[in-house]
This record gives sequence, C-alpha cells and structure tokens, in this order.
Amino acid sequence: MNRKIRMGMIGGGPGSFIGAVHRIAANLDGQIELVCGCFSSKPEKSRATGESLFLPPERVYASWEEMLEKEALLPEGERMDFVSIVTPNHVHFAPAMMALDKGFHVALDKPMTFSLEEAKQLAAKVKETGKLFLLTHTYTGYPMVKEARHRVLNGDLGKVRRIYVEYPQGWLYNDCAATNKQAAWRVDPNRSGKAGCMGDIGTHAFNLAEYITGLKATEICGELQTFVPDRLLDDDGAALIRYEGGARGVLMASQIAVGCENSLKIRVFGEKGGLEWRQEEPNTLILRWPDRPAEIVRTNNGYVSGISAYNSRVPAGHPEGYLEAFANLYRNFATALRAKLEGKEPAPEALDFPSAEEGVRGMRFIETIVSTNNTDAKWLKLVE
Amino acid sequence: MNRKIRMGMIGGGPGSFIGAVHRIAANLDGQIELVCGCFSSKPEKSRATGESLFLPPERVYASWEEMLEKEALLPEGERMDFVSIVTPNHVHFAPAMMALDKGFHVALDKPMTFSLEEAKQLAAKVKETGKLFLLTHTYTGYPMVKEARHRVLNGDLGKVRRIYVEYPQGWLYNDCAATNKQAAWRVDPNRSGKAGCMGDIGTHAFNLAEYITGLKATEICGELQTFVPDRLLDDDGAALIRYEGGARGVLMASQIAVGCENSLKIRVFGEKGGLEWRQEEPNTLILRWPDRPAEIVRTNNGYVSGISAYNSRVPAGHPEGYLEAFANLYRNFATALRAKLEGKEPAPEALDFPSAEEGVRGMRFIETIVSTNNTDAKWLKLVE
Amino acid sequence: MNRKIRMGMIGGGPGSFIGAVHRIAANLDGQIELVCGCFSSKPEKSRATGESLFLPPERVYASWEEMLEKEALLPEGERMDFVSIVTPNHVHFAPAMMALDKGFHVALDKPMTFSLEEAKQLAAKVKETGKLFLLTHTYTGYPMVKEARHRVLNGDLGKVRRIYVEYPQGWLYNDCAATNKQAAWRVDPNRSGKAGCMGDIGTHAFNLAEYITGLKATEICGELQTFVPDRLLDDDGAALIRYEGGARGVLMASQIAVGCENSLKIRVFGEKGGLEWRQEEPNTLILRWPDRPAEIVRTNNGYVSGISAYNSRVPAGHPEGYLEAFANLYRNFATALRAKLEGKEPAPEALDFPSAEEGVRGMRFIETIVSTNNTDAKWLKLVE
Amino acid sequence: MNRKIRMGMIGGGPGSFIGAVHRIAANLDGQIELVCGCFSSKPEKSRATGESLFLPPERVYASWEEMLEKEALLPEGERMDFVSIVTPNHVHFAPAMMALDKGFHVALDKPMTFSLEEAKQLAAKVKETGKLFLLTHTYTGYPMVKEARHRVLNGDLGKVRRIYVEYPQGWLYNDCAATNKQAAWRVDPNRSGKAGCMGDIGTHAFNLAEYITGLKATEICGELQTFVPDRLLDDDGAALIRYEGGARGVLMASQIAVGCENSLKIRVFGEKGGLEWRQEEPNTLILRWPDRPAEIVRTNNGYVSGISAYNSRVPAGHPEGYLEAFANLYRNFATALRAKLEGKEPAPEALDFPSAEEGVRGMRFIETIVSTNNTDAKWLKLVE
Repeated sequence: MNRKIRMGMIGGGPGSFIGAVHRIAANLDGQIELVCGCFSSKPEKSRATGESLFLPPERVYASWEEMLEKEALLPEGERMDFVSIVTPNHVHFAPAMMALDKGFHVALDKPMTFSLEEAKQLAAKVKETGKLFLLTHTYTGYPMVKEARHRVLNGDLGKVRRIYVEYPQGWLYNDCAATNKQAAWRVDPNRSGKAGCMGDIGTHAFNLAEYITGLKATEICGELQTFVPDRLLDDDGAALIRYEGGARGVLMASQIAVGCENSLKIRVFGEKGGLEWRQEEPNTLILRWPDRPAEIVRTNNGYVSGISAYNSRVPAGHPEGYLEAFANLYRNFATALRAKLEGKEPAPEALDFPSAEEGVRGMRFIETIVSTNNTDAKWLKLVE
Repeated sequence: MNRKIRMGMIGGGPGSFIGAVHRIAANLDGQIELVCGCFSSKPEKSRATGESLFLPPERVYASWEEMLEKEALLPEGERMDFVSIVTPNHVHFAPAMMALDKGFHVALDKPMTFSLEEAKQLAAKVKETGKLFLLTHTYTGYPMVKEARHRVLNGDLGKVRRIYVEYPQGWLYNDCAATNKQAAWRVDPNRSGKAGCMGDIGTHAFNLAEYITGLKATEICGELQTFVPDRLLDDDGAALIRYEGGARGVLMASQIAVGCENSLKIRVFGEKGGLEWRQEEPNTLILRWPDRPAEIVRTNNGYVSGISAYNSRVPAGHPEGYLEAFANLYRNFATALRAKLEGKEPAPEALDFPSAEEGVRGMRFIETIVSTNNTDAKWLKLVE
Repeated sequence: MNRKIRMGMIGGGPGSFIGAVHRIAANLDGQIELVCGCFSSKPEKSRATGESLFLPPERVYASWEEMLEKEALLPEGERMDFVSIVTPNHVHFAPAMMALDKGFHVALDKPMTFSLEEAKQLAAKVKETGKLFLLTHTYTGYPMVKEARHRVLNGDLGKVRRIYVEYPQGWLYNDCAATNKQAAWRVDPNRSGKAGCMGDIGTHAFNLAEYITGLKATEICGELQTFVPDRLLDDDGAALIRYEGGARGVLMASQIAVGCENSLKIRVFGEKGGLEWRQEEPNTLILRWPDRPAEIVRTNNGYVSGISAYNSRVPAGHPEGYLEAFANLYRNFATALRAKLEGKEPAPEALDFPSAEEGVRGMRFIETIVSTNNTDAKWLKLVE
Repeated sequence: MNRKIRMGMIGGGPGSFIGAVHRIAANLDGQIELVCGCFSSKPEKSRATGESLFLPPERVYASWEEMLEKEALLPEGERMDFVSIVTPNHVHFAPAMMALDKGFHVALDKPMTFSLEEAKQLAAKVKETGKLFLLTHTYTGYPMVKEARHRVLNGDLGKVRRIYVEYPQGWLYNDCAATNKQAAWRVDPNRSGKAGCMGDIGTHAFNLAEYITGLKATEICGELQTFVPDRLLDDDGAALIRYEGGARGVLMASQIAVGCENSLKIRVFGEKGGLEWRQEEPNTLILRWPDRPAEIVRTNNGYVSGISAYNSRVPAGHPEGYLEAFANLYRNFATALRAKLEGKEPAPEALDFPSAEEGVRGMRFIETIVSTNNTDAKWLKLVE
C-alpha cells in the first residue's frame, strides 16, 4: 500500500492547543496525511482552519456528523482511514461511536469519555467493530518510558514494592477560566466531567504507573481539593494506591502547584533496584542499585532496549521531546493500521500504544478518586 | 564567661554513627568542649572511646547513672554544663529525666523517646526544671531550610495550600540487621519503639514540614508497610495529611527505596509561590513563581535573610553540609546556654533549635501513623 | 498562495542520519512537502528511498544533475520551490551552485562547503541570484537560544566580557570508521575537508557564540589534536578567541570525550549578568546576576521574549527538542520563502535563520583553526 | 601520645575569611587544639580574637616573630607543634621560613609565596629541616576528588587524553576593593603577587588537574585579562595546556563571571572513560563510559575506594562540604604529624595532603601564565 495513511480530524480549531499537537505528531514521520476535518462547531472557523492547513474546501465539514457521513461515502482510495478526535471531553463519546460504526479507525484524546459508563460502551464498540483505537496517553510514547517498562517487565528491578507518581502543574493556581480558553473547559463540569485536575492530568499519572510497572491498581484512598475559590472541580489531590501483588503507590496531581510547568515524574522501587523518570528531562532514566552507582540511561544509546530504540529518531544527545513522544503514538498506530489495511498482522512493537482498555481504566480511576471525597471508607476498589 | 561550654556524652561508643556526628557537630565552632562521657554500657568500650577522645580517665564513666551522679558533685567551674544523649531510642527517657533532675541541660537525639507518654513526661520535666533542651532534628539546621521558613512565614508564597515531603532511603531494602549495627536496633521494637522507618526518618520529614510552614498537622490518613520478610517494624509508609488552615500534605518515607541515600525533600506551594529543597543538595532552594522565572536561592549570598546567613559559615559556593547543619543546632543551643549561664536572655536566633515541643509532636506523629494501620477510620487526629 | 512549499532533496538515502532529520524537520509544521529527490548516487538506492517516502517514481532521480535539470523544466505550479542538500561536505558546493543557477532556493547542511574558497563563491552566487539560502546550524533554532540572543542584544547582561563555548562528544573515541558510515566520511579528508571535529561540531560552537552575542570573533589561538591512531583529521581541539569589542572566548570541541553525547553548551558573562545554555537540556536558560538569585528561564512561559515564543510550539513544560529546533529553521525559511513567492517582504522573524554569511564565517573558522597547528604565531586573524 | 596536636595561628583576625575556616577545619575532628596565635598585626585586634577563641592571654602574641620566638622557648609538653599561617600572600614566606627554622611544622595557605623564587627557597627549607609542610589546596580534600584520582591512577579511564578544568567566580565583577576586605588584598599586587585571579583560584584549578590525573603540565599557552577598569591584576584568563604523555588541557579561571559562586569543575577523558566533578555539588562524581550508562558515584557508598572512604565521615547521602574537605587536609596532616611525633612512619593515607612540591608547581604556574601576556611565543614551558 504505497501511500500515506489518511487522517481526518474532529476539533482542533482556532485556540485549540491539543489539536495542533495532534497534527504535528501525526505529520512528523511522514506516514500520515491530513485529508479532511471538522475543526470547530462554528463552520466559518472550521473553514478557516481547513484553509490554513491547505485542505481542499470540500473536505472541510461544518459538523462532525456531516463529516463522518460524507467521508464514509467516498471511495476507499480517497476517504480517510481514521479520524482523530481532539475535542473537549464531553464531545468524545458520540463522534467516536459514530466513527466506529461508520467503519473508521479512531484516535482519541484522553480521558476517554465524559463518564465511565460511556467508556465501557465505547470499549465494547471498539471490540465489536474490530477497529484500531488509539487513546493518546502521550507520556507512554517517550523512549525512556519504554525503557523503564522494559526494565521492570524484564525483572531488572525485582518484584515491585513502591511506586511514587506525581504530576504537579501550576497554571490553574488562580481563577483564570475567564481569560484562558484551555482553562475554561477544563474547570467546567459540563465539559470536563466529574473531575478537573484528576481527569486532565491525574489520569496520565495513573496510566503511566500502570504502563511502566505492568501492575493494576486495586484500591485507592485519596482526597481531592478545590483550592481556587468558586471553582467547581478539583484542582489538586493525592491518593494512596494499592497495586496487585502487594506493591504500594502514592499518586499526587495538582494544578495549583505554582510555578510548576508539566512536572510528571515517576519512581519505582523493586526488591533489587529502582528507577526514576521525569517528563521535563525525558531523555534521562535513572536506575538505582543497592550496591553500585546509579546509572544515567539516556535515549538511543547503543545499550538501550530494542523497544526503546524503536521509539527514537535521532542519535543520543539530540533531545527528543513531547512532540516526538506524541508522534510515536501516531506512528505506531499508523504502522499497525497500515498492516491491517494490507491484511497483515501488526508487529508487536506497532501495537504498543494505549487503547480502549487504558481508557476504561482511566475513567474508572476518575470516578473512584472523585468518590473518595464522598465517603468515610478508607479504601475504594478500582476493579470490576 | 570566658570559657567553652562543657559537654558530657551518653552513648556514642564504638560503631555508633550518630555519636561521632554529635561530637563533630558540637566541636565544630569551638564553642563547646567534651569533658566527660559514658560512651557504652560496656565499661571497657567506654574507656577506650574516652581515651581516643583524649578525655581524662576519671571523667569516663562506667554507667550513665554514675556519670550524672558524679558530675553533679563536681564544682561548678568543672562539671559539665549539659549532657548529650545519643543512645538508641529506648535509652532516651531515663537519662534525660535524671539529667534534668540533676540540674543539667540536655541535648537529645530524635525521636524524643520510646513512647508518646514518655515524651509528654519529659517535656513536662523540661518545663518544670527550666533547663534548655535540644532535640536534634538536624535538617532544620540547614541555612536554606531557615531561608525556606523565613520566606513562608514572611508571606512570600502566600497562604500555604499544598505540602509534599518525602524521605526515601534504600539502606534497609533487605534483611541487613544481622550484619549492620545501625540497622539492628532500628528494626527492633524493643529498642526503636512502635515505629521503624517512621520513627527514624518519618519524624524528620514531619518535623521539617511543620518547621518550614509554621503549620501544625491536624489529621492523618496513612498506611505503613513492612516489605522485608520477618521484619518486625515498618520499613516504608505514606500518608495524606491535613494541616491547620486548610493546607494539605503528603508525607512519604521509605527505607526500602533501593539506591536512595538520604533523599529528604520538601515542596511547599502557596497562593503566590512555591519552594523546593532537597537535603542532598542542601545549599540550593528553588523558589517558583506564577509569572516569572524560578529562582535558585543559594546559601550565604548577599540576598538571603538574616536568619539564614546567621546559620552559614563560609561564602556562597563553598558547600555547607550535614555536619554544619548539625553544628548549627549545637551552636545555637550553646549560644543560648551561654546567655543563660551568664544570666542573660538568649537572642531569638539562638533559640532557633528544636526542643521538647517538637519532640512531643514527633512522638504523637509516630503513634498516630502506626495507628492508621490498625483502624478502619480514614482520618486520625494529630492533636490533643 | 494556498499550497505547501515544495521541497526536493539531494542526499539522505539509506544510512544517512541527517537526511531523515531534514525531512522530519521540513515536514513537522505542515508547511513544506517533499516532492522529489535524488537520495543517493546509486540509482537503485535513490529509488528505494523515494518509494519509502511515497514519492512518484518520476520525481525520483538518478543523479542530482538530472534532478536539477528536469525539475527546472517542470511548470511552476509543479516543480520544487527549493532543494535541500544533505550530502557529505564535498558534495555541497556543486549542487548548490547549480541549484541557484537553475533558479531554486537552497537549504544546505553545514559546514557550507569543502573549502573557504568555495564558500565565498557560493555566497557570491546567493547574492547574485537573490535566492533564499538556509544553512542548517540547527542549534540556533532552539527557543532558549533565541531568548539568550535576545537578552544579550537587549543589553540585559551588559557589555559582553567572557564567552565559554564547548562541544564535547565521545562517539569517535576509537577507530570506528570501518563500521560506522556516519563516522567514515567525517574522518576522511576527501569528503570532510580540512577539518574533522572542528568542521563537524566546532563550527556549530563557533556559530552559536557569534549568534547569541552578536559579536564577531577577530583572532584565534588554538591547537588541534588527533588522538585516535591513524586518523587523518583532528578529533579534538581548543582555542582561545578574541572577539570584537574586547570580549574573550574559549572554544572547546572534542569527539573523543568518551561518554559525552552531544553536549554543546555556552556561557556568556557581561558586565551586568551572565547566561548559560546546554543543548542536552535545551528548554532551560540560566540567567545569573550579581546581587539576586539566578533565574531558570524556561521555554514558552509567559515571560519570554516574542522571538523565543515565536519559535515554540507547545506550552511550557512540554519539552521541545532537537527536531523542533531544526524545524524552526525550515519553518522560518519556508515562511520567508512563501512571502517571497507571494511577492511580499518577509517578516523579520521569518528571516531569522542562518545563511551564507554564517556559512562563510564557519569555513573561515575551519581554515584558520587548522592553520593554528601549522604556525608559530600565537594569534591568527579571523577577518578579511 | 595521648593528647591533641597543638596548633598556633598567624593571621585570621577580624574580617579574615580563611582564618576562621582554618580553625574550624583544624578543630573539626577533635585531633587538633588551638593553643596560641598572633591573629593580626594590630595587637589589640590579635588580643580580641584570642579572647573570643578562649585562649589564655599569655599565648596571644603581638607579632608573629614574637610568637615564634616565645613558643620555641616553651617546654615540649606545652609549646605548639605546628603553626598555621593564614595571612595574605606577601606574609607567607618570612613566617614560614622562621617557623621551620625554629623547629615547627607548618601549615600554609595557598599560593605558597609571593614569588616563585621564595617558593623554591621555602621548599628547600622544608627539605632541609625535615618538618611536615601542609599547603591548603582545599579541593583535593574532597572524598570524590580522592575517588577521581584513584580511578585515573588505577587506569579505569585508560590513558588520559583531554582535561578541562574551570573555575568561574563572579564576586570581583566590579570595583569592590574599597568595600570588601577580602577583595582589597587580592587585587593589590603588593599583597597578592604577580597574579590576581590566577594566583587566587587559577592555582587551585591547576593543582586539581595535576592531582587527579597524576600528570604534570609541561607547556602553557594562555592569555589573561583585566576587565574591571583600574584594576592592577588579572581578573580573568584562560590557557591551553600540554601535559606529559600527550594529554591536552584547557584551564579557565575568572572572577568576573557574574553570578557564579565558586564553580570549580574538572572533566578528564581517557581512552576508555571519562569523569566529571563539580565543587558545588561535591559528593557526586560522574563516570562516563563509551558503551554503558554513565554512573553517579556518590561519597561514602560501599562501592567507593578505600582512600575516598577514609576521607569521609558520614554515611552516603549526608552531604560533606567545603569544611570537611578542608578538615581532611588538617586531619591527614595531624595524623602524619602524630606518627612523626611518636617516632613512627606515617601511613600513606596520612601523607595524602598537598605540600611544598605542589606549592612550587603553583608558583611556577602563576609566573608562567603571567608571562604569556608579555611574549609573542605561543607556548611557554612549565618545567625546570
């Protein structure tokens, strides 16, 4: 199949941060081309965005329903292969469901849906249709996160005992919703869902810990806060977590940690070793040992694992950043999709991207941690 | 009073880590001289230690009771002014009580006592006798910890919202009690008390957060673990903490965090700014702001507060370490003691050392966090 | 002009590192599309690369001469707008000259040419033809490098006194030419030119210092080494540099600094302040002041300069890396080219990319520093 | 010999930085006691300092000549064992010569003397008298510097190729001599000697490189600057250095590097590995390897060398700082001196302190680097 994979986009109009990021990420490796989109619920904004992206006017749609309808009618050599949905949380479920029903593969920004119930339905739909589904938990795309997971699953650290994962941000430290479009929907329960901070970034932290350790969280004991007056959703919180196999975790997420940018960090300690990774310096993975010096593992050196090297593009010392991590999700998804379109079995490394299962886990985490504030029970279960 | 302050020591014989540290710390500024000691419960070991410290044989005692008895009988120009007690936790209470009763001022290693009940009695005795009492929460002695406290109390960060304090160590990651004397008593409930990790280092973390923020913890929700098989005390734990005024904290302490050395770290976020300090790079204090670059505040630059400069000895860029922090406790204590011996009121900066109140807080923390494992209640109170 | 800018490529076939980087960089912002190429001097390799890039076979050429000839004959709505030349150094001059003569704009990897004489001719040709010319000194594309330059030119640091620029790498620490294609041509005088290390990375360091400070180096006193036996070009060297206005610099570059990856770093000190930037943690710029804490300036925060923000894509805390820096060169070049193609004057920020003047400076630096080894004179001039 | 070693001090009166440092360092380990001093050329100041140090008035002298005369007349059980000379550079030679002649061992602050000629004479006197001589190149006292030296001499890095040593400070960035006593004598050729920056800190950098690598510098090509108007000595400079065996070095020292504190740093690269050490984070030594992750070697872990552990006092993770490094010099010197006084051969680890040979090397470095500004020759020899 000697052509690029064709992507349509829902959302990502003027003022969207994440839409542009998705486009760069999809574009970066030259495997995907944007062929159509409905970038805004306001047709004129959608048109203007489409034009700035050099799309033909007839492939820029006034509504996502129209787009899914019309694209489905195009011949196979022309219509989009998958749709990337980058709208606020309350507009995830409906277009994703319809896209799957119309036969499109789907890439979806996290958290998966507005509610856990929706997430379960969507996951069932993914299974039913057999389409590929990408949930963009970006941080799992970093080469050193792959390396971390490889090391843990390989047993280098021994049985996992202790997990610390934290995600402090500061940008919502005051009442900025009126002036910041990105803030506005995130603090609005009608668009964001039951959780604010925990939905926006807590889910990333939760996912990262499960991805790296391969362990499922089983119980949670937490507390959420809303520090900014009149805000309707949590802007901070922390939880103790019990994992299967006896490991214990602490998860901390905050959007009022003044002056912090995007400081996702994880530490894992096992019986034989420990590791540490920080998103803001993502090409470094620290490994700690009981009886020899800590090691500074760095992206794409000769000594890293195959899966880590596979998710790198440039020689060691040439920093790979957030967009490259994001692009890894799209590239792996596109590689798997290409195989599927060619009737082949995708390689295991191509299937290494977050999907519906991770999405349901994230929604369950959100609903559960929100519940911790409304009950006297110390521990709430995170499993079915 | 043109002489050095005279110190006696109980504990600190062969194989003791903390005894030698106390001696260096007391010695460092040339304000205190060691004049007598009972360094071990084994007289021959005590004698050998005394000799290596160039003490006259008659001032090296076979038991601490003998020492306190005999020193009290010496003329004022000769007998020790205060005693430094550096024994394991179960031998804190009795010698401290007797020393106070005999008219000596007391320096005591933390945690204060074996039980909260003892701590309360000891605090009452301190109050009753009017003697000076130093509890060596070393980490409050660092210049940048003083600076952090100054900044918070000065309101630079605004009202405190969020506190993260963590203390990962790795040295007890396996069953080392048989071969490591330092480990042996710390994991033995008969010598250490109700808590292992939480008594040894959790108390430091707890104290540091209260010291820097000036806030009292009011409720705690935690869980302790014992990861190493057959160990009798906790070697790891974490807690959510509520502070007065609405601030929220997370406290994490572990002695099984493989490869970590002594990684005490605190972050505090207020309505207007945040700060971050790490014990392993103690001369740096990071201040974070919402709308301007983070600042790297460094020990003893011209711009630091008076109280911070007062606790420094060398120009900026000449690292001050753990022993200097420890020495600050002794120097401040000695300065206050000198004033007292001269019949003067100690200056406020001389009284800046942890004392009985902090000791009782620490013991209450230990007893409470141990209780969190034995109850279904989510939140336990940390106040009277 | 509602279409993407059309790029052709010379070089960048199998095993090329920098060719793929150029393609990603050009592709990243969706402003440029690759339309043709001659990727290898071996036609079958060129074809295979073209196919993997989804190019139509008729736009994949067997030689660069053929490509330039045939593209020039295509109608304006179809032919490439510019050519990107990513071959080893000895194949820079001829295709660049011909491309300009054929009316194409040119992007060229550094160093500009094989010799200073060629560089001067090429610069004259650029001037004569009036075409846009991009020389990919990647490191000037980083947002924090832009910020650094802005701060210096703005006078924040005062008059510049002292510059330290260093570029240690370790990958050529042993005789790896036989097994590493990237190494092979770089250590071959017939393909690399007069210098090895200094041509490959010394020029980047030299360029970065001139870019950030806005100062021209006037004299150089240096020494080159070849540490690896039987190597024919320098693999290490250092120089003292005199800049106009009295500033003094040290330049260090090495490819035998074992274990170093790509550690370009610059420090500039003026009469009022200093700055520090490291390529391996590129989103941080440290500013130092005499009487207040050092500041940690970070990419794309609200407080950074306009030119720095213009060269960023994602919010603060989402690391931008090497590819984004590279993409900035292409995006700015493409923006300027679009303006030119539309008959408009490019905006100043679009013209912020290295060009022929920087290329000639770099070649002069190479020829001069190589000469320092062959003369007794202490200082050699770096100006006409 | 069951007593402390007895120290006298010349210099170190009010306003002296380094005098207090020497006293703390000598005092820290409880092996040395200060017994007498002449702390200032002004008798009343000397008396006041002596009193604040709890010295008996009869052991506080009005002139250093008087002190050396009178101490020499005291009985052996009472008189000082050695004298510590902490005066400005122009008052090093005479008291050191006289002290040796009077039979005292000597500790002397660096640089050794005012001129190379004096240094040679003093070294000859040391040899002639057979007394112990300590030159306080403090930075060689750090445990991780010991470890670095051990690793290089042990061959872990292979044959040394490249050395970078740098020492940027910022405190003399402007004309502060009038208000800063420490600055005043350092920038005064009558008290400091031929060099300013290079004498004060360049010598430390030079010494550190020779100490760690065990290599002697043979030739130097440098340039000094005086950036601050009307200053009479250099405040900045850099040099290329050739070492025996073919290694090459760069030495950079500056006191106008605004905002830098005391940023001594060294990197050494050999054929098999590299190392990096920074004084401002002194408990970390980075080791770099070609084919495996860099290692973070940390003070006093179980894996460090014996000589490094011998120069540590507290467990890993308890930072040892500048004063501890300084104290190591005194402790080693005192240990060697005790052996000597007891008629024993000092252990090799006790003789690990800088002495007269290092002092002469330092003075030769100063005289040579100053000469580089006054000659057209590119390379000046650094050997006899």
